[in-house]
Amino acid sequence: MRLSRFHLHTTKETPADAELVSHKLMLRAGMIRKLAAGLYTWTPLGLRVLRKVEAVVREEMDRAGAVELQLPTIQPRELWEETGRWGKFGGQLLKIKDRKEAEYCFSPTAEEAITDFARQELSSYKQLPVNFYQIHTKFRDEIRPRFGVMRAREFLMKDAYSFHVSDEDLAREYENMKAAYIRIFTRLGLEFRAVQADSGAIGGDASQEFHVLADSGEDALAFSTASDYAANVETAQAAAPGPRPAAAEEMRKVETPVQKTCEDVAALLGIPLQRTVKSVAFFGEQGFVLALVRGDHSVNEIKLAKVDGVGEYRPATEAEILEHLGSEPGFLGPVGAKKAIRVVADREVAAMADFVVGANEPGFHLAGVNWGRDLPEADVVADIRNVVAGDRAADGGEIRLARGIEVGHVFQLGRKYSQAMGFTVLDENGKAVVPAMGCYGIGVSRIVAAAIEQNHDEAGIVWPVPMAPWAVAICVINPKKDPQVDEAAESLLQELKAAGIDAVLDDRGLRPGPMFADMELIGIPHRVVVSARGLEAGTYEYRARRGGEAEALDRAQLLQRLAG
Amino acid sequence: MRLSRFHLHTTKETPADAELVSHKLMLRAGMIRKLAAGLYTWTPLGLRVLRKVEAVVREEMDRAGAVELQLPTIQPRELWEETGRWGKFGGQLLKIKDRKEAEYCFSPTAEEAITDFARQELSSYKQLPVNFYQIHTKFRDEIRPRFGVMRAREFLMKDAYSFHVSDEDLAREYENMKAAYIRIFTRLGLEFRAVQADSGAIGGDASQEFHVLADSGEDALAFSTASDYAANVETAQAAAPGPRPAAAEEMRKVETPVQKTCEDVAALLGIPLQRTVKSVAFFGEQGFVLALVRGDHSVNEIKLAKVDGVGEYRPATEAEILEHLGSEPGFLGPVGAKKAIRVVADREVAAMADFVVGANEPGFHLAGVNWGRDLPEADVVADIRNVVAGDRAADGGEIRLARGIEVGHVFQLGRKYSQAMGFTVLDENGKAVVPAMGCYGIGVSRIVAAAIEQNHDEAGIVWPVPMAPWAVAICVINPKKDPQVDEAAESLLQELKAAGIDAVLDDRGLRPGPMFADMELIGIPHRVVVSARGLEAGTYEYRARRGGEAEALDRAQLLQRLAG
Repeated sequence: MRLSRFHLHTTKETPADAELVSHKLMLRAGMIRKLAAGLYTWTPLGLRVLRKVEAVVREEMDRAGAVELQLPTIQPRELWEETGRWGKFGGQLLKIKDRKEAEYCFSPTAEEAITDFARQELSSYKQLPVNFYQIHTKFRDEIRPRFGVMRAREFLMKDAYSFHVSDEDLAREYENMKAAYIRIFTRLGLEFRAVQADSGAIGGDASQEFHVLADSGEDALAFSTASDYAANVETAQAAAPGPRPAAAEEMRKVETPVQKTCEDVAALLGIPLQRTVKSVAFFGEQGFVLALVRGDHSVNEIKLAKVDGVGEYRPATEAEILEHLGSEPGFLGPVGAKKAIRVVADREVAAMADFVVGANEPGFHLAGVNWGRDLPEADVVADIRNVVAGDRAADGGEIRLARGIEVGHVFQLGRKYSQAMGFTVLDENGKAVVPAMGCYGIGVSRIVAAAIEQNHDEAGIVWPVPMAPWAVAICVINPKKDPQVDEAAESLLQELKAAGIDAVLDDRGLRPGPMFADMELIGIPHRVVVSARGLEAGTYEYRARRGGEAEALDRAQLLQRLAG
Repeated sequence: MRLSRFHLHTTKETPADAELVSHKLMLRAGMIRKLAAGLYTWTPLGLRVLRKVEAVVREEMDRAGAVELQLPTIQPRELWEETGRWGKFGGQLLKIKDRKEAEYCFSPTAEEAITDFARQELSSYKQLPVNFYQIHTKFRDEIRPRFGVMRAREFLMKDAYSFHVSDEDLAREYENMKAAYIRIFTRLGLEFRAVQADSGAIGGDASQEFHVLADSGEDALAFSTASDYAANVETAQAAAPGPRPAAAEEMRKVETPVQKTCEDVAALLGIPLQRTVKSVAFFGEQGFVLALVRGDHSVNEIKLAKVDGVGEYRPATEAEILEHLGSEPGFLGPVGAKKAIRVVADREVAAMADFVVGANEPGFHLAGVNWGRDLPEADVVADIRNVVAGDRAADGGEIRLARGIEVGHVFQLGRKYSQAMGFTVLDENGKAVVPAMGCYGIGVSRIVAAAIEQNHDEAGIVWPVPMAPWAVAICVINPKKDPQVDEAAESLLQELKAAGIDAVLDDRGLRPGPMFADMELIGIPHRVVVSARGLEAGTYEYRARRGGEAEALDRAQLLQRLAG
């Protein structure tokens, strides 16, 4: 490919409305252009990258035995009514009326459509298992589309749906898909983690997310140094604490006139923060709840909501706190409540001795507090805290934290959709059974943005080779002045093509500075400069986008380097 | 590919609601499944064919220098208001409101979106010419979707748009695209014609359609035996007639008691039909019009509408006819009208002598009529007839008729969209100029159906090799009973793969009859049978889908045949 025949349009200005670095760089490199809120045109440059991702996804899905098809993007309301999602899906579902006032939606996902297809196509256990996938345009009417293609309304998604006669077979395919996803993200050259997820609103029994690691990621992840264990911090667990030590101190009231936080109290008393306990008041389904976590920990809201008797909850009001504990916030504690309260202690707190809590009296805390002696054992002991970096993991490793961008998700859906839509097949005994389903999504267009969040520097994008629009940029110095330079560049281009290396020849006639800047901005992994001076010396200047010095290589050395 | 791992689902029943043979066969072969009216799922089998067409289109567009991008399918009303098409496009435009009540449409074509992209991207003549294309989902809300994917609402289209500083450069690219289209349809193995078209509502200066020839085609085409000239019968012209012969007969009134048609009058008088003239009464913009065509010809409504003073017209009522000609239909003619009428004679009629027309008196015709002597020369002489098979073409050849399915269209749009949307670039002199545009469409999904209309027989589809889901079907007899048969088939599959031949191995274990019927129904061009008996003899049974006897070939002969 000669760049003079390709529409490349880079800009120096950083777009005002772009927050994320990937959004800025995709605009500056000219990969996308906005048509309207959350709607982007993929320019020729952007589309090259998108197609490379798509090709890897397709190859690995095929390799895993999934079969590609394509469902319509516009789907009738009737199908979505069968599962109740026409009403439940929420505002992200773009609803449409056709000229005959019949109702449709633009598919944001396709469980209904594929189950409808399956119930027409599949009637016998002999046709199962089967895994259908498509790579197709989706639409979610985001209330606040932003971050470019990271959270666009129209986007490209790979969605796969498998059907099974048994849960065991679904579990097998689920593992098969996880392995395929690992191959996909590995091949794309991305640093990623498979993460245990809370399956949330989609429902089902087991699910896992795939995250590209990037500091700008929306999701906080916890992973262990000792295994592949990784989880969203929403659900991550540390190892259970050891046994509770014996009490060594007497309980005593200490004056803490203005010290309302654990940090301030620990500093005043000259003790480690880990010896203090934070008391947080909530009002849950069964009334007033006092949640206790260690001073250096924080309450995990999702975990707390799962505690028996808490359920849907809200922070307690000051009036409720005063009514139950007789104090103002800042000095709260589980000892000597005025009214009956439910004490929910984190596992770590339940294993503490000689700790410090608020005295339920403004200006005072209690030190040397011990369970069973100074207060009854907690009503509930559970893991209700967020993990922190340095926690011990259940596998013996150390927990570290990272931020991630979700680019894939695998679910064991079970029979939620097949049951609702009355889909059965005959099993080996001629009995009608409802097949179990799995679904497996990859945000193909989102991967492009996530890869940039993970791979960029001051000069622009730094593509992993498998996603780069071209692996090699052949920069020609003065192509119009020196025809033999252009010829040498063309012959190199053809030689690379024959070797299966995807290269672009920059014959636009720009000066070296702007030309190199463009190739760096658009992130081409390898740069080769062809100049009259180099040709005289029999060399090409090579430089890697990821850094390092420019080197003068002869043709054989150059080809070896680029093939490597 | 092993068929046991592919979801193939053929049926014997002919679907009740399918009229066209392509629709029936696509359903029976299991290429598509209906989701809702005009909305089809492409099954794994169907998608393989669709992708093959897509790949050829993409390769030839790239070869022609066009650059691929992708526009959103959902496009804002504001853009369509700029060209006035939000209101004018009609009911086929699927209009959508998002959650914020902002209005959008599902793109049925993308002149507005691409011109918006171009005006953001292109500012200098140096960036022109450029031809952007996409292969993407489109939606047209057909009032009566039918014929399967032939006239579906959601479909796959290749649409390209070029931008030029001059009309000459647009004309050059227009020819370039026509050449690309010819390569595309030739490579796909289709019999087709490039046809002059009436550009109709899309507007613009020049346009041409590409039709796949098939008896079931919606469009009637005329083409010449002497050149590439072809036209929709709506606009096709025959060669102009020779000079008018001298009058040889006297005008006379002949009795035609019940003979109201030219055929009946000619039979009664014992003269050729070509000596009679048909008089058809209309009411046009400037009043009563009598259109004259030869007895064996018919009036072409599109041509007539273009005649000066006719414009929008309708058939005249019996009352109007009586008022102007004093007769009832069946005996009408241009001689002796009661009131002033406008006579529009077809070129052929104007060149006739001694002809027969109605006498404007029930039961009578006039014979031996001659222009200038018996009636004044016609008010207008023009080509207002449909061509018929056997007409002489302007190029000296003979006109033949065929039916076609429109699968491509190229337009010179001129400045209609760029002007309306205020898109300018600076020319060489720094002056702002409005670029000329071309647009070039191919109905990718429609090609699949059109190819079947052209290529099928009693047993099913007969794919041209470039579009076939697989070029070769390797049919294994008793794969479970004879493992070495399966092994031989697998080794053949791998050998073909290495030779770049796309083959499928039918290892489903069906009996030969149903297996062969499936492979014929889905149209695989080459069939190879691998059986224990054949292996013993060292042969494979080969048969071409297009017919011919089954042959026993050894491996080398077989490979030669399949490579050829």
